[in-house]
Amino acid sequence: MGEYSIGVDLGGTNLRAAAIGHGGTMIEKVEGATKLSAGRDAVVADIVASIVRLRSSGGAEHLAGIGIGTPGIIVIEKGIITESPNLPGFENFAIRDEIERLLHAPVLLENDANAAALGEKWMGAGRDVDDLVLLTLGTGIGGGIISDRKVLHGFVGMAGELGHMTVIPGGNPCACGNNGCLEKHASATAVTAMARMMGLGENPSAKDVCEMALAGNLKAQVVFERMGSALGIALATLVNIFNFPLYLLSGGVLPAWDLFAPAMFDELQRRSFVFRNTTTRIEKATLGNEAGLFGAAYLPFQSRIIAPPV
Amino acid sequence: MGEYSIGVDLGGTNLRAAAIGHGGTMIEKVEGATKLSAGRDAVVADIVASIVRLRSSGGAEHLAGIGIGTPGIIVIEKGIITESPNLPGFENFAIRDEIERLLHAPVLLENDANAAALGEKWMGAGRDVDDLVLLTLGTGIGGGIISDRKVLHGFVGMAGELGHMTVIPGGNPCACGNNGCLEKHASATAVTAMARMMGLGENPSAKDVCEMALAGNLKAQVVFERMGSALGIALATLVNIFNFPLYLLSGGVLPAWDLFAPAMFDELQRRSFVFRNTTTRIEKATLGNEAGLFGAAYLPFQSRIIAPPV
Repeated sequence: MGEYSIGVDLGGTNLRAAAIGHGGTMIEKVEGATKLSAGRDAVVADIVASIVRLRSSGGAEHLAGIGIGTPGIIVIEKGIITESPNLPGFENFAIRDEIERLLHAPVLLENDANAAALGEKWMGAGRDVDDLVLLTLGTGIGGGIISDRKVLHGFVGMAGELGHMTVIPGGNPCACGNNGCLEKHASATAVTAMARMMGLGENPSAKDVCEMALAGNLKAQVVFERMGSALGIALATLVNIFNFPLYLLSGGVLPAWDLFAPAMFDELQRRSFVFRNTTTRIEKATLGNEAGLFGAAYLPFQSRIIAPPV
Repeated sequence: MGEYSIGVDLGGTNLRAAAIGHGGTMIEKVEGATKLSAGRDAVVADIVASIVRLRSSGGAEHLAGIGIGTPGIIVIEKGIITESPNLPGFENFAIRDEIERLLHAPVLLENDANAAALGEKWMGAGRDVDDLVLLTLGTGIGGGIISDRKVLHGFVGMAGELGHMTVIPGGNPCACGNNGCLEKHASATAVTAMARMMGLGENPSAKDVCEMALAGNLKAQVVFERMGSALGIALATLVNIFNFPLYLLSGGVLPAWDLFAPAMFDELQRRSFVFRNTTTRIEKATLGNEAGLFGAAYLPFQSRIIAPPV
């Protein structure tokens, strides 16, 4: 095998890390809770301990480096997180340099949705393409854009904020200041909110609503039709903008695919002549919550073949 | 100077061509009507005659090649136009190979909006950036995306269909099959349609409506507020997707900037936290209707420094 890298997926809830070989084989994985209540330094200590453990299992193999995927806005060249509501205490903290200092190994930082998109490109549903867009349908909606095999970062690293595309100009208010953001109409949270408004319980999870819909509940089915329609509007615009061959969906709402996909494809057919006239694919991502681990682990390998983003 | 290239802007109405030096100096320009009524072969003969004339004025300098910008959907590797409502007779015609054959010089084909975006990047308002989006607000709305100094083509060359982003899901019907396309709410044609609906005449041009608004006509002012609002919705989504440093506007509606820009920036402020938190610039393109000529002329120079799009 020769060489491996370590990918870390630092989320607000879970902390995962894995040693992955140059060919994409997962060697070992560790996971636990992100102990935010114990403070930032305790979380950093957990990250370091995970990496040390994975490193020892790497044996005599060469460690190419460490990649860390994390929610929030990353300033890549500085290796810091400037804004991350899900990781209190980490804002403007020099996480990359600190972990490099503690472990004496090169560390690369990336936004979690970008890392997931890169992971799907490397070892998941996007292996056969150079360009793809990933939408993660979870509590919010994250986006990652892979263009010419690389993450599209934009000039300050904020590209891919696809959850804040306007899909319904007078739609639901979003904490970002907008009305009608995609994530207010198509995330797991949006599914819950729509279901509550339709009288389907106090706080049903997207999974609950999915089960109701599959059991024949018409209101629950309408929730997913609306969610699929909002998603289709956004995808139609993305397809008209990028003309990429592949758009991937992942996240907690994915099991409801059969419920939301018909409305989604209806909107795509109607709203995107690029979709109608090409072999554009809209598909499920295949790596699940390991996509971010794979993408983070890929960063050290990729940094050697392409210049780092400026 | 050493070397020059020839750019051709083949439009449905006008045919322009120019010899441009490697440093971006325009040496000579010729222009006339596109004589579509005389048939395709007559138009091709005019293109060839223009190039021959510019070539003779190039004297002993070396001709790097010929670039042609044209409306419609281009299959770049084949050098053909597959769909172009504005150029009847040119569909699936091997225009690149035919002109190469007649002139014994390398020819490159590009979509006109893409060429205009590339021209602005080379010698216009985008000289200082590597990434930009151009929107041409004319009869329709065209788009060109420059990412890492190159045109973003997508997998079949249809990227940048920004006039068909959905800005108002239940909005005006578009010939593409969608409702609420940007170009049905923010093009010169949309300005005319809104003005007519508000009783401002039978078929006022965007220029007429602009003059009415500047003279204090409140209805005409509302037309540009609505147009600016639709444009702002689209730009907010583009800024959230790309986080590019620069978005340029050009085309016939541009002189109304002061009338539509306030509503446009209001939407951007409200709908894009990426816009609010960065130094993103929304500006007028500077090359006017010569942008496409510059971009077309740049194609032969660029093809030597980067691999051709696959």
